[in-house]
Amino acid sequence: MQDCLFCKIVAGEIPSQKLFQDDDITAFRDINPAAPKHILVIPNRHIASINEASEQDQSLLGKLLLVANQIAEQEGLAEEGFRYVINTGSNGGQTVFHLHLHILGGRQLGWPPG
Amino acid sequence: MQDCLFCKIVAGEIPSQKLFQDDDITAFRDINPAAPKHILVIPNRHIASINEASEQDQSLLGKLLLVANQIAEQEGLAEEGFRYVINTGSNGGQTVFHLHLHILGGRQLGWPPG
Repeated sequence: MQDCLFCKIVAGEIPSQKLFQDDDITAFRDINPAAPKHILVIPNRHIASINEASEQDQSLLGKLLLVANQIAEQEGLAEEGFRYVINTGSNGGQTVFHLHLHILGGRQLGWPPG
Repeated sequence: MQDCLFCKIVAGEIPSQKLFQDDDITAFRDINPAAPKHILVIPNRHIASINEASEQDQSLLGKLLLVANQIAEQEGLAEEGFRYVINTGSNGGQTVFHLHLHILGGRQLGWPPG
């Protein structure tokens, strides 16, 4: 997608603090952190929202969560805990329409979650 | 796990408002809803937290998200949007130590997410 911010981050056309990248997944720090540690994990391929994912994406979605686990561990969040958030559409507060999973940690996360 | 609340819900030993169940996944309404629509989606097998999932669980984790998408659609959340949340450990606010994904919808979710 030519005008997608996250596609440009995947391609390296926009700078980001990348923590992980392979052929399927990219992880980078959120530029507007909502917690001391705030990382985004995304599929490299453009999927607008999680509800645009199809059954053929099952393996990719599983990998998205496994890579997030790996990043949480690397960032030292595994012991004290963390939260994953995926926003979809208007009520979800989705702002960039390229599927992304938020990892939030480094502070006590409250309830309700927004 | 004998003393796990969610294992008992999967087994039908504790009543719940189930929306979905197959051999892998169960979905039911949260008894303390934080939004007009608040559903939990869990693997039937006891996995204490997402960071206890292994690479062998990749397909199961992908299915967890695909079933959540199906429930969000069934509950009429797809158009207006929704939020998925997975809490892990103390900072994440995890209260039941059986992996569960929250689906929240039916109102505008705020930011930060807790």
